Amino acid sequence: MAEAPKANAVVAQSGGPTAVINASLVGVIEEANKHPEIENIYGGLYAVAGIVRDEFIDLTNLSADKLESVAASPSSALGTSRDKPDSEYCAKIIEVFKKRNIRYFFYIGGNDSANTAHMLNTVADEANFDIRAFHIPKTVDNDLLVTDHCPGYGTAAKFEACALMGDDLDNRALPGVKIDVIMGRDAGFLTAATALGKQRDDDGPHLVYVPERPVSIDKFVGDVDGVLTKLGRCVVTVSEGLRDVDGIRWAKKLAEQAETDAHGNIQLSGTGSLADFLAGQVKTKLTANRVRADTFGYLQRSFPGLQSGVDVDEARRCGQEAVKLAMEHDNGSVAIRRIGNGADYAVELFRTELSSVAEKTKPMPDEFINAEGNGITEAFIEYAMPLVGELPKTEYLGNYPRV
Amino acid sequence: MAEAPKANAVVAQSGGPTAVINASLVGVIEEANKHPEIENIYGGLYAVAGIVRDEFIDLTNLSADKLESVAASPSSALGTSRDKPDSEYCAKIIEVFKKRNIRYFFYIGGNDSANTAHMLNTVADEANFDIRAFHIPKTVDNDLLVTDHCPGYGTAAKFEACALMGDDLDNRALPGVKIDVIMGRDAGFLTAATALGKQRDDDGPHLVYVPERPVSIDKFVGDVDGVLTKLGRCVVTVSEGLRDVDGIRWAKKLAEQAETDAHGNIQLSGTGSLADFLAGQVKTKLTANRVRADTFGYLQRSFPGLQSGVDVDEARRCGQEAVKLAMEHDNGSVAIRRIGNGADYAVELFRTELSSVAEKTKPMPDEFINAEGNGITEAFIEYAMPLVGELPKTEYLGNYPRV
Repeated sequence: MAEAPKANAVVAQSGGPTAVINASLVGVIEEANKHPEIENIYGGLYAVAGIVRDEFIDLTNLSADKLESVAASPSSALGTSRDKPDSEYCAKIIEVFKKRNIRYFFYIGGNDSANTAHMLNTVADEANFDIRAFHIPKTVDNDLLVTDHCPGYGTAAKFEACALMGDDLDNRALPGVKIDVIMGRDAGFLTAATALGKQRDDDGPHLVYVPERPVSIDKFVGDVDGVLTKLGRCVVTVSEGLRDVDGIRWAKKLAEQAETDAHGNIQLSGTGSLADFLAGQVKTKLTANRVRADTFGYLQRSFPGLQSGVDVDEARRCGQEAVKLAMEHDNGSVAIRRIGNGADYAVELFRTELSSVAEKTKPMPDEFINAEGNGITEAFIEYAMPLVGELPKTEYLGNYPRV
Repeated sequence: MAEAPKANAVVAQSGGPTAVINASLVGVIEEANKHPEIENIYGGLYAVAGIVRDEFIDLTNLSADKLESVAASPSSALGTSRDKPDSEYCAKIIEVFKKRNIRYFFYIGGNDSANTAHMLNTVADEANFDIRAFHIPKTVDNDLLVTDHCPGYGTAAKFEACALMGDDLDNRALPGVKIDVIMGRDAGFLTAATALGKQRDDDGPHLVYVPERPVSIDKFVGDVDGVLTKLGRCVVTVSEGLRDVDGIRWAKKLAEQAETDAHGNIQLSGTGSLADFLAGQVKTKLTANRVRADTFGYLQRSFPGLQSGVDVDEARRCGQEAVKLAMEHDNGSVAIRRIGNGADYAVELFRTELSSVAEKTKPMPDEFINAEGNGITEAFIEYAMPLVGELPKTEYLGNYPRV
C-alpha cells in the first residue's frame, strides 16, 4: 500500500436527505483537518452532478460553532442529486479531480453512492490517477448490506414512533380507522418503527404492513375488521411499497389505473393515492365510522430538532472513520458492527468493500416480521430501540375505571 | 349572584384534539381541587357523547406526577366527540347532572363547544337546576372570536414552522416544486405559520395560500412559475380549505369531479387529493422537474414532545381561570388579552360571554395577508412568533461562495 498522498479532499452527499447526513459531513471535515496529508477539504455541491460541473466550496476553515450547527441541521447541507454516473461521467469527474489535485473522495449516501465511489476508484485507476474513494452509509430506509444499521435510520425511526404515538392517541380520542402510509419502497424498517412507541396493550398501530410481505386487499380489509371488532378502532401503518399477492406494488397498480381512467385534470400518481385507495376500500367494504388516511411524505426525513442522540453520534463517527481509513486504504465503505445491545448497546466501525455494499439492498429479516405478515416482532423492537433513544411518555385517561 | 354551590364538577374535551388540550384539563383539575365548593371533579368521557351515556371517571385524586404527565401529553386524554347537542340532548345531560349532583361544567373546545355550554346553561335554567357552565378555548385553527389567540394554536404553528424549515432544506438539496397542504378549512392561521421558520432571504415557503383569499389555478401556476424562474425551485403551502375564485373550495370541486368519474375502486375525496391535484396542474402546465406534494394530516395536531412553552402554559392557565370564574359567575368563556408583545410578550385572561364566542369563527385579519394574496406580512410574524417560541436553527452551505 502506497503512503497517503498529500492532496485535496472532497466530500459530497448523495441521494435523499436525512436528519443526520450533515453530522457525517461534519465528521469528515473535522477528521480531515487533523491529517496533514489532506490539504483542503472541499464540499462538492449537488453530489456528482455539481462535482462534474466543477462546483465546490471550501470547508477547511469552518468554525467549531458552525460545524456543531451544521451537524444539528437536517437535510443535505451541500445539496444532493440522484444521478447515477456511468464510466464516461466518472472520467469527467476524474478530470476535475486532476485539475484540483483532489485525491480523496468521501461520498455519503446509499448503495448507489457506494457504487459511484467504486466506479470512480476504478476509472481513476485506469487513468493512472491514484484516488482514495470512500463511502459513508446513509439512508432512512436502513437497507444497506453488511452494516448492522444505517445512520439516518434511527432519527427517521424516532419520527415514525413519535408520529404514531400521537396519531394513536388521536384515534383513541375520536375512534375510527386510521391508515398511515410510510416511506419504504422495498424495505419495511421505517414502517416497522411506527410500532416502537407503543406503551399500553391496546396502543396502535394495531396492524403493520411492510413490502417484504405481499397482501391482498381482502386480507387487509379482513385484518382491519378483526381489530375493529375487538377494539372499536384500528390504526394501521403501511409501507408505500406494499405489494399485492402477485408481487406488484399497489401504488403501481393505482398509477396505471389512473392513467387508464384519465379524464384530464385529476392525477392519481401523487403521494396521497395509496392512502386514499386503502381508506376507500375500508369505507366500501366495512361499516366503519371515520376512516381517515395520511401519507407522511418528506417530513419523515427532514423534520428539524428531533435527532436521535445515538444516530447523530454514529453518523458523525462514520464520517470520521472514513477519513481515518483513507490514510491506510485505497477505498472502502464504513460499516457498523453492534457489539452490545439493550442497556449495553455499543458499536464498533469497520471497513468493508465498496462492492459488497453497492450491489443490492437489504430487506427486513424474517425474524422481524410476525407470522401473519401484519405486525412486527419483539426481535425487531430489541434491534431498533437503541437506535431511537428515549421517547416521550404519553397519557390516556379514557381507560380508567368508570365511576 | 348566588353563592357558588357545593356540588360536583365535570370537565370534558370536545372537537379535534390538540397538543395542549390536556394542559387545560390539568388546569381545571388542579384549580378545582383548591375550591371546597367543588366536591369531586369528574372527567366526562368522549365529550357530550359520553356524558349523555353517563360515562365518567374520577379525576379528584390524580397524583401531581400524573397531572404533569397528562399536561405534557398530546390529544384529548378523556376522548372527544363532534356531536352538536340540541335542546333534547341537553335535557338528557341535565338529567345525568341532577343524578350526580354535577353543577359545574367545564368544556374545553372550539366555538361549537361554547355553544354547547351556552345551551346547557339555558336548558338547566329552564329546568330550575342551577349549573355553572364554562368554555375553555382550544383550537389549532386559532379561529375563535374575542380571544387574541387560542391555546393549541402555538404548538400546531410550531409544528408547521419546523416542518417547513425541514421541507425547505429538503427542497434546496433536491430542487423542484414542493406543495404542502395544511389544515384549515376557513382560517389560514396554521398555513401562515409555515412561514415562521424562514431564516435566509430565499428560504421557503415562497408562496402561502389561505382560504381567506380565493385563487384561480392559472394564478397559482403563474405564481409558481415566477418563483421557479427566479430561484430554480419553489416551496408552496396551501390551506386545505383553499377556494377557487368562485368561492367554492377546490377540495369540494375535486370530490365532486371524482364522484362523477367514479369507476368503482378509486376514491378521490381522501386527504391526499388536493395536493395531488395541484401537483398535477404544475406538472402539466410548467416544465418543472421534481414536482412533489404532501398533505400533513393529523400529525399537525398530535405530534408528541413538541409543545410550545407559551402555549402549554397558557392552556393550563385558561383551565385554572375557568374554575376561578365559576366561583363568581354563572357562565362564561375564558379569553386571552395580549398586554405586551415581542420581548415583552404577556397576556391576561378575562371572562367573555359564551354567546360572543359561540356564534361564528374568525378569519385571518387582512393585515396578516399580503396584497397579492400569496404570502403573509410582517404583522402576522409579530403576532404569531411569541406563541411559537424558539425554533431550531438550520444550516445550508450550498449558497457559500464557490472556490
